[in-house]
Amino acid sequence: MRAIVFDQTLKFCTDTALRSPGSDEVIVDILQAGICETDLQLCKGYMGFCGTLGHEFVGIARLGRFAGQRVVGEINCACHACEMCQRQLSNHCPNRTVIGIVAHDGAFADSVIVPDRNLHAVPDHVSDAEAVFVEPLAAACRIAEQITLTGGEVVTVLGDGRLGNLCAQVLRHQGCQVCVVGKHDFKLRILQRLDIPTIKLEDLQPRRDSDIVIDCTGSPTGLAHALQLVRPCGTIVLKTTVAADQTLHMAPFVIDEITLLGSRCGPFADAIELLSQGAISVAPLLTATYPLEAATHAFEHAVRKDALKVLFDVR
Amino acid sequence: MRAIVFDQTLKFCTDTALRSPGSDEVIVDILQAGICETDLQLCKGYMGFCGTLGHEFVGIARLGRFAGQRVVGEINCACHACEMCQRQLSNHCPNRTVIGIVAHDGAFADSVIVPDRNLHAVPDHVSDAEAVFVEPLAAACRIAEQITLTGGEVVTVLGDGRLGNLCAQVLRHQGCQVCVVGKHDFKLRILQRLDIPTIKLEDLQPRRDSDIVIDCTGSPTGLAHALQLVRPCGTIVLKTTVAADQTLHMAPFVIDEITLLGSRCGPFADAIELLSQGAISVAPLLTATYPLEAATHAFEHAVRKDALKVLFDVR
Repeated sequence: MRAIVFDQTLKFCTDTALRSPGSDEVIVDILQAGICETDLQLCKGYMGFCGTLGHEFVGIARLGRFAGQRVVGEINCACHACEMCQRQLSNHCPNRTVIGIVAHDGAFADSVIVPDRNLHAVPDHVSDAEAVFVEPLAAACRIAEQITLTGGEVVTVLGDGRLGNLCAQVLRHQGCQVCVVGKHDFKLRILQRLDIPTIKLEDLQPRRDSDIVIDCTGSPTGLAHALQLVRPCGTIVLKTTVAADQTLHMAPFVIDEITLLGSRCGPFADAIELLSQGAISVAPLLTATYPLEAATHAFEHAVRKDALKVLFDVR
Repeated sequence: MRAIVFDQTLKFCTDTALRSPGSDEVIVDILQAGICETDLQLCKGYMGFCGTLGHEFVGIARLGRFAGQRVVGEINCACHACEMCQRQLSNHCPNRTVIGIVAHDGAFADSVIVPDRNLHAVPDHVSDAEAVFVEPLAAACRIAEQITLTGGEVVTVLGDGRLGNLCAQVLRHQGCQVCVVGKHDFKLRILQRLDIPTIKLEDLQPRRDSDIVIDCTGSPTGLAHALQLVRPCGTIVLKTTVAADQTLHMAPFVIDEITLLGSRCGPFADAIELLSQGAISVAPLLTATYPLEAATHAFEHAVRKDALKVLFDVR
């Protein structure tokens, strides 16, 4: 089958073999798949991944509970036997593979193999392109699982990219007063059109009045900015991984009793529900769609500052 | 009056004036006061403090609600008018002074001035020396205010000093399975005699099985050790401030969804109750008692590796 494989370099292959699915696994024939910041990091050597990339996807399940239906799939493939799994923390299973990220071939291919229990059906009125956003939107929804929101919280989102935009929309939907700080006029304009206030990074003043600051910058400077904005006893949510070491003065965390909260994968059901309700607008985030054959062009496009979400159409 | 003043250097003075108390303030005549790690940091220039040191104390209130009684005093003197105070976060009042730490003369003196509302009466059967521990014990109790403990949590305390010992005792009293990691045989033996398991730092193995890790090391290496011990979705509590910058790889916080929680001053009422019940043993932490006149000797003793709590007897 066709597949976009990373093995020291990025390659489009036409003869990639699909392994046989396990008894609890299903082959999903891909319709569309999205390039994520993590894919760009994997191409720089992050996690030492070697194999087929891609973990944001929608496809048709060949067998299983949703045979013949459009599905999206959770990316953590857990053992469901270890202590973490028994604690309902299977996303942190130490034995897990992660689709397109850790020891599990991904979805930039004609087909991907997914545990049946990881699949969720996509409602008919959610488009393929919208469904590709379920995975990153679930990651944004994770914040509302980790923090008890009562509505009215003052939230600053650092970063105007894909994930920053989705986090801002989700938290606003939860009743928070959200403001996004970013560098790119056209990305900030997308947020403004969604009635979300924005601040250009260069105009940012230390305020110390945010109940919650969400760092979606993917930059080592994000956390230092977050510390200038969060109020005493407030929370900084780290959404993006920074491969580099960061040098920080930790004393403010103690003096001001700040909580720093790492946040990763989230609830697919919540994300599908939000898309189904039309509560989240993902169309403005679509930058371009490429065929698998144009892998190199698509990845070059995705790293550009003026790009948001770049998709592959696999049909 | 007599006072131990830090003004570039540490000085014992016999002619320090006591300012007039405000209408909501009370003069407290000191019985005993304890040297804290923060005092040692202030003598290195931390916070740029200049004035009478000392914030752990027991004394006799001259006036106010507890006139003539033995009292201890909370150290944050808030404005009780600002937004933080109205949110019940007066310990984070931006207008606050802090006794012996920020713009407020401290308790290493014949007398100290304290807002009446900051005072708590000491039960008769709690000794003066025990009462000096109310302030640091309250800081340990703060953790149980910030984290909902259900009992049975696996807790590792990093640091076998004064605060590490108190945190271990408080968390054990809350029903947690506590283990303390430290460097000093005699400090670890004190914990063992309290039936708290210990590990010598050099024997520490990365385990990733602690629900909660409490960093009481006061060392830049504490946080890196904590990351090797905390389980995915677990919590690292930062109790001690490190003046230096720390270089950290932040990705594990995101990947493993770790919570980092800064923790500072705590509830005096809870600490007094624990001491009153005899639930916490502070006697083994008493290293030596000095008169105010021996300020230099006392501070030299407090910095020694074989010292735990050094007190001043002010009578």
